[in-house]
Amino acid sequence: MLARTLLCPASARPGTLCLRCLFITSIMSNTNAPTVKKDGPGRLASVYSELQTSRLNVSLPLLSVLKKTFNVVDGAPSSASGNPEEIKKLFPKLFGQPSARLVECDPKACSMENKSLKIGVVLSGGQAPGGHNVISGIFDYLQERTNGSKLYGFKGGPAGIMKCKYVELSTEYIYPYRNQGGFDMICSGRDKIETPEQFKQAEETAKKLDLDGLVVIGGDDSNTNACLLAENFRSKDMKTRVIGCPKTIDGDLKCKEVPTSFGFDTACKIFSEMIGNVMTDARSTGKYYHFVRLMGRAASHITLECALQTHPNITIIGEEHFALMKVAAKKQTLKNVTDYITDIICKRSEAGYNYGVILIPEGLIDFIPEVQQLIAELNEILAHDGVDQDGAWKKKLKSQSQELFELFPKAIQEQLLLERDPHGNVQVAKIETEKMLIQMVETELNKMKQKGAYKGQFNGQSHFFGYEGRCGLPTNFDANYCYALGYAAAALLHAGKTGLISSVGNLGEPVEEWTVGGTALTSLMDVERRHGKFKPVIKKAMVELEGIPFKTFASLREDWTIKNLYVSPGPIQFVGPNANDINHTLKLELGPPAQAKLNK
Amino acid sequence: MLARTLLCPASARPGTLCLRCLFITSIMSNTNAPTVKKDGPGRLASVYSELQTSRLNVSLPLLSVLKKTFNVVDGAPSSASGNPEEIKKLFPKLFGQPSARLVECDPKACSMENKSLKIGVVLSGGQAPGGHNVISGIFDYLQERTNGSKLYGFKGGPAGIMKCKYVELSTEYIYPYRNQGGFDMICSGRDKIETPEQFKQAEETAKKLDLDGLVVIGGDDSNTNACLLAENFRSKDMKTRVIGCPKTIDGDLKCKEVPTSFGFDTACKIFSEMIGNVMTDARSTGKYYHFVRLMGRAASHITLECALQTHPNITIIGEEHFALMKVAAKKQTLKNVTDYITDIICKRSEAGYNYGVILIPEGLIDFIPEVQQLIAELNEILAHDGVDQDGAWKKKLKSQSQELFELFPKAIQEQLLLERDPHGNVQVAKIETEKMLIQMVETELNKMKQKGAYKGQFNGQSHFFGYEGRCGLPTNFDANYCYALGYAAAALLHAGKTGLISSVGNLGEPVEEWTVGGTALTSLMDVERRHGKFKPVIKKAMVELEGIPFKTFASLREDWTIKNLYVSPGPIQFVGPNANDINHTLKLELGPPAQAKLNK
Repeated sequence: MLARTLLCPASARPGTLCLRCLFITSIMSNTNAPTVKKDGPGRLASVYSELQTSRLNVSLPLLSVLKKTFNVVDGAPSSASGNPEEIKKLFPKLFGQPSARLVECDPKACSMENKSLKIGVVLSGGQAPGGHNVISGIFDYLQERTNGSKLYGFKGGPAGIMKCKYVELSTEYIYPYRNQGGFDMICSGRDKIETPEQFKQAEETAKKLDLDGLVVIGGDDSNTNACLLAENFRSKDMKTRVIGCPKTIDGDLKCKEVPTSFGFDTACKIFSEMIGNVMTDARSTGKYYHFVRLMGRAASHITLECALQTHPNITIIGEEHFALMKVAAKKQTLKNVTDYITDIICKRSEAGYNYGVILIPEGLIDFIPEVQQLIAELNEILAHDGVDQDGAWKKKLKSQSQELFELFPKAIQEQLLLERDPHGNVQVAKIETEKMLIQMVETELNKMKQKGAYKGQFNGQSHFFGYEGRCGLPTNFDANYCYALGYAAAALLHAGKTGLISSVGNLGEPVEEWTVGGTALTSLMDVERRHGKFKPVIKKAMVELEGIPFKTFASLREDWTIKNLYVSPGPIQFVGPNANDINHTLKLELGPPAQAKLNK
Repeated sequence: MLARTLLCPASARPGTLCLRCLFITSIMSNTNAPTVKKDGPGRLASVYSELQTSRLNVSLPLLSVLKKTFNVVDGAPSSASGNPEEIKKLFPKLFGQPSARLVECDPKACSMENKSLKIGVVLSGGQAPGGHNVISGIFDYLQERTNGSKLYGFKGGPAGIMKCKYVELSTEYIYPYRNQGGFDMICSGRDKIETPEQFKQAEETAKKLDLDGLVVIGGDDSNTNACLLAENFRSKDMKTRVIGCPKTIDGDLKCKEVPTSFGFDTACKIFSEMIGNVMTDARSTGKYYHFVRLMGRAASHITLECALQTHPNITIIGEEHFALMKVAAKKQTLKNVTDYITDIICKRSEAGYNYGVILIPEGLIDFIPEVQQLIAELNEILAHDGVDQDGAWKKKLKSQSQELFELFPKAIQEQLLLERDPHGNVQVAKIETEKMLIQMVETELNKMKQKGAYKGQFNGQSHFFGYEGRCGLPTNFDANYCYALGYAAAALLHAGKTGLISSVGNLGEPVEEWTVGGTALTSLMDVERRHGKFKPVIKKAMVELEGIPFKTFASLREDWTIKNLYVSPGPIQFVGPNANDINHTLKLELGPPAQAKLNK
């Protein structure tokens, strides 16, 4: 603590303590740190647990380069992830701009202006542990590296920008949220800034608040949106710059320069704690098959990571399943998943085990073409004619869809018909895939039992782990990573950069040696054709079947199938030998040298 | 570590290291303690996480009295919890026997014989974190305080006793399970030793293994069974003694001498971690009502404890609800629960909050007489006539039950009809009360909306936290408590005691100052009339509406209803400032002096 207190001001204003250090020092000097109770502008009348309080008072390690004087240095010009010509047309001002890196420099050679900045920050989309630390990082940068700057937090996501609903963030306001989970400091929302009117509203807000910059903390969609905003502000010759930050527990926003999205580490560790517990339970009772559905809509990264952490008997990876099905040109793909599971259950039963743990990605159903087809037909029928009680409407389904619908258990049929989003569409997310699979597997096993091909007992237990993991206390990794992302985002705005995504690299090294910079958002983009127009998108990073995490999993899973090699990672620890471990996916992607260092 | 190593042998065999210390020392000396991989007789081919490994190598503090020479000293004669005459008839040999205490004595005055013992141990019923440490405690006692003793672990619960399925436990066998969750060392089961034939089988096993004693680790039923076994062995003049240990995450096996059952502390902390996360999520998104059902069949202790830890907006305590209903002589009790929830949701909506967290005990439905009535009628109908597709069977229900049945959502109706236990009875445990309440509340709110009495948006999310909490790594408290329970159980057997339940007290003090002894199981008993006969039962300890935990909750909950005073306890920590905290229920029951000491 002392070291940090002395280091920090030495870099910015030698001989004095910065606001943060003053604040932290004052809190730390109160050794009997009591439960925090805030009735102030921040967390409304929150009462803190001892662990929350202790986390509040943990200082965040700052990257070595961020402790020194630095310049923001440009790299080589960039292109796009795909269709560069189209991206160029969509982003005429920003296309091709180089990525940037923060590089230590002699104080005399520093080109960062000593000026005050007005910055806005917004949280967009679903929660991910660490979001508050991104905001803390931005705030601390402004406090330590600029004079008289202001930070506005837009409330309730992008809608806050459009409606100019904001709060000015202060040390007192931010303090209770340091190292805490959730997005409740300023809350989040799922609105998008899309229409010309909405862009106009954003412009008005930017002008009204005289914003020099805006930090958009979000996933692939939100970062695409951030880039469109940046392009728009630039094209209007406005001074407002926009920087994105990679957020999503799903782990599907990543590339070479952005090794991971924040929140993934914490969420996977929380889910793995629960999975490990359920595994021990399965082995102890010896009579349950636990079907665990894991949050993560499009990609199966969470499921893969949890599998690497816990060694379940069966793991369904959506991307693999889809690839296999494509090769085999099979249609009855849902049946194939069921058969795959049933087959292993039979083998385990022969080996004497009538229990097990099965991981299923939330997005599984999205990977199954026949289900997509059924849902498309259902949406059509529901939108036009509706359904009658007698079931005559079913005749409007194509025969394959009708068969599939009848295959589903009653509860799933009801969900398909009843649960619809505000646009009237079937909500795939509400489908309890784990229960559906339990019932389908049970039906199959009963058939086999009658034929004498299965002699075991099957008892399915369903779980969905999702909300529990989105808002946990961020792990040390997520806490540090987010703080660096925020600090870097502010530095990039300070240097006048726009249309970049905050990028923290070299994650295989100790925090002090991490690198920071920004990557051109346009370089992550491709186009998709929607309603006859090209729309820019940051393609979701799916599980790479040729990537090291999947290959590692694939090389081990056979062993996990029959043997019970369960691992119970236990609850996340903040101090102790494994408190700074990073998740397996990232460790494997960083490669052997980084792994070796991390394991030291 | 060193202190423990030196202290331990000094008490038993001065100048030498006991087996345990030798073993632990050899492990600790390997500072780079690797991942444990056991393919041996114990945990089959398990791979351990770093946290599991680190927990494995944590030494357990021994109570001061257990480090010294002690005698087992009798207290005053005991009676029964109710109907002492009937209990006396049922336990002619054991009734009235005194409780016992381990009291330090001069080595010369020690009356504990230096002999070898053959002891059996069995895990009975559902898992609870810490069970393995009870076994470790028994084992270590035998190693340290007796010579050449043997410990047999009966496999798969009481059935293991009847079938004489056992394993001889060794240092190597036990080691991988120290401080680990689950019951997988010897597994558990739900069989009971009830019929004369079954008692005969137990006798045969006791004779075959030449058992001096048996430790039964279980809940209220299993401890009743333990006492019946003890009485039976005694009446046959067999040397086998029986000692019980209080196990259940439900927390409903406790009395003055047995302040808590093990596993409750860990399970509640795991559930509270999840609830805290879900609360942060609720506040961050601002649009979900999370209905959380918590494991714990009969009593609502878990729900009460989790409420005290996390401060939800609404908490249903089954015992209170039932008491209120009795006073009001109301029949439509399920409707009352719905109305209570709906009312608060409306008030919160007016205050601007369309989100919240609601805790529901698993056993809620058991407290509702009209539901019990319906289930009784359904069991009757299902057993005799079955149900027809057209629903004509419903006419056999009494009108109130018919109304109630129609009130239920379809999915619940199906569960009531389809999910039955091996005896053909409706399985109340399978009823997803949280989903049922969501649907009933939603229906009610829609009605109110039409009348203009409710203007909010309602989005229910359901959770069931159960299996995730039964097998977690035991907290420091449960780890230490269980070790002491096991050590004491072995000491009681060594002193020739039978029909006692291992009792560790003074829990408000540091571990060293805890007291140990045994309480006469007959003193916890009452009788129940079943099939025209008196049956002994240890009455489940329900939530006392006049007890301090409930009163504390009742005095605070009003404040939690509208304000959002959520607390997020976060993941269980094994080191750090709050690692040794005990749960609120126990802390409150121990009273202010203990609380003050614990808070220091």
